[in-house]
Amino acid sequence: MNHPDLITPVILSGGSGTRLWPVSTAERPKQFLNLIGPRSMFQMTLERCQEPDLFDLPIIVGGAEHAPLAYEQMERMETQAAFHILEPCARNTAPAIALAALACEDPHRVMLVMPSDHVIKDVSAFQDAVRQSQPLAEAQWLVTFGIEPSGPETGYGYIQQGEPIAGSSNSYAAQRFVEKPDREAAQSMLDAGGYHWNAGIFLFRADSYLQALGKYAPEMLAAAQKSMELANKDKNEIRPDESSFALAPSNSIDYAVMEKADKVAVTPVNPGWSDVGSWDSLFEISTPDDQSNVTSGDVLAIDAKNNLIHADGLEISVLGVSDLNIIANGNKLMIVPRGQSQKVKEIAAKRKR
Amino acid sequence: MNHPDLITPVILSGGSGTRLWPVSTAERPKQFLNLIGPRSMFQMTLERCQEPDLFDLPIIVGGAEHAPLAYEQMERMETQAAFHILEPCARNTAPAIALAALACEDPHRVMLVMPSDHVIKDVSAFQDAVRQSQPLAEAQWLVTFGIEPSGPETGYGYIQQGEPIAGSSNSYAAQRFVEKPDREAAQSMLDAGGYHWNAGIFLFRADSYLQALGKYAPEMLAAAQKSMELANKDKNEIRPDESSFALAPSNSIDYAVMEKADKVAVTPVNPGWSDVGSWDSLFEISTPDDQSNVTSGDVLAIDAKNNLIHADGLEISVLGVSDLNIIANGNKLMIVPRGQSQKVKEIAAKRKR
Repeated sequence: MNHPDLITPVILSGGSGTRLWPVSTAERPKQFLNLIGPRSMFQMTLERCQEPDLFDLPIIVGGAEHAPLAYEQMERMETQAAFHILEPCARNTAPAIALAALACEDPHRVMLVMPSDHVIKDVSAFQDAVRQSQPLAEAQWLVTFGIEPSGPETGYGYIQQGEPIAGSSNSYAAQRFVEKPDREAAQSMLDAGGYHWNAGIFLFRADSYLQALGKYAPEMLAAAQKSMELANKDKNEIRPDESSFALAPSNSIDYAVMEKADKVAVTPVNPGWSDVGSWDSLFEISTPDDQSNVTSGDVLAIDAKNNLIHADGLEISVLGVSDLNIIANGNKLMIVPRGQSQKVKEIAAKRKR
Repeated sequence: MNHPDLITPVILSGGSGTRLWPVSTAERPKQFLNLIGPRSMFQMTLERCQEPDLFDLPIIVGGAEHAPLAYEQMERMETQAAFHILEPCARNTAPAIALAALACEDPHRVMLVMPSDHVIKDVSAFQDAVRQSQPLAEAQWLVTFGIEPSGPETGYGYIQQGEPIAGSSNSYAAQRFVEKPDREAAQSMLDAGGYHWNAGIFLFRADSYLQALGKYAPEMLAAAQKSMELANKDKNEIRPDESSFALAPSNSIDYAVMEKADKVAVTPVNPGWSDVGSWDSLFEISTPDDQSNVTSGDVLAIDAKNNLIHADGLEISVLGVSDLNIIANGNKLMIVPRGQSQKVKEIAAKRKR
């Protein structure tokens, strides 16, 4: 990390959601799955920061239980990390990012914090927004990236932009963070303009973040510092001390820091972003075949359209059905109509019992 | 076979249809599958003639390739056959029945010819109809059983009844055989009355059948006779000579004999019969659960109704879908809406390529 002008990507790979059940599971969460091509979303996140004039080696922060998956997928890409930080327990994003910030040798180092389970189609647009925002981060702004909303989505938080920041090319002071709204509130924001989806992607100096954390969540900072002081280090693998880290309150960076801090900026960007939060959204970001189905694996579709069919090892044949998500994984098969895939959690919960 | 008044059941188990694909296959045709309970339709056909005051041991006629399946299923029921006749090649029903008739030592023996892949719910009603028809068969009538139609079905042949047969309790001279009609013709027959579905179940003396065959299909009779003369016999297993039997024209008993013969009777009966000719018809004869789904195996159904779900070894979860046939077998899965399950053959054919 001897390139002061390079940015250190911080890839958060600790999620273990079940919204893409039965394929995404606690054992193999969605960021490690090849759902939309030959590479996993974790691998695509790594690819997104293979720009040597912009990015240094990344810091990966993730659950210890998924480390073998992460190592295997990085090895297959022949790529390296500056550090792998293995969270001893899950404490949400704010403490995880603190671990990464504390691992930076240079406190002025700018970090690009990214979830590893999102899709960004236009990587150039994304990197341009990062480049434009770098001077702000260096000037100690906490920069968020605001995705241009494509509809009154109720599944995301929103960021309202305030005044343009003088000297920036296209960034605004963040005026307000809005939690996931209902449909009506979402539509009002769309109508009003100047609101962006909060994609959970951030750019700031390590010390800016740690200072804000010290101000708004001092016990979280203390727990992270202690766990790093007592960490086991083996080459570039860092295992923070479990009992110290367990004392950190579990909270998101949005709640713990961003909604409270003063010098928060938002850079609008429209990079074809999706959090792939449901089978429906996977269908939407995928390229359909000539029958307008999105299929993977051994699928025969006759007079069938607008289906998402993930066959895994099965040989799936459909005739005369439309608008279904048909998802196989191992011996598990799930069928839900398009538009109802947010109810997958209900199925997963019942199946867990 | 020393009971002159007993009837010899002749169970035709040579079918290998794919209308219940992917579960029914050439290797394991539907009569050997447990689709509607703990016993296969072949086993239920055997059960149907376990009435010692009415039936002698049955003669089973089936493909040599399915003999191990038939033996295994009979052994599990601890039941026996008078003869197993292993067809060396498939020549449709008329030649198969000829083999059974030639195996009868007593030419006056009355045979009850039945497919092994149908369901009959009211076995008493069926046996009563057989009992009532036995004197007609002994008097050299070729008796058919006519199923009371429940709708203008286009998938079955129809038999028009003529004059009542004097001295019979409830049988008629068969006036006309109608091939599978179109919807309009089927409705006309229903409106006219006096038409019955042809279930392919017959009662006649062995010699009555062989005489009719000699008259209307002499080359078929000759081929069957020759193949039985040259047959390999081992205990009660008969393997007719292949090259002789191969010379028999392939034809159904309906076309070869029943539509042409003079002394053909029809006994109407309403025994809850189904040929289980499609997944739709399997759904119709099955008992639905309290969500009105028919399921077998590990199925979780949430807000889902009127589905037929055959899970085989899979763990199938559905939410918000209705009126689907969801059928798994091994690594094969098929989904077609209710009412379209006759198109399964199209899928099976494409999958075979």
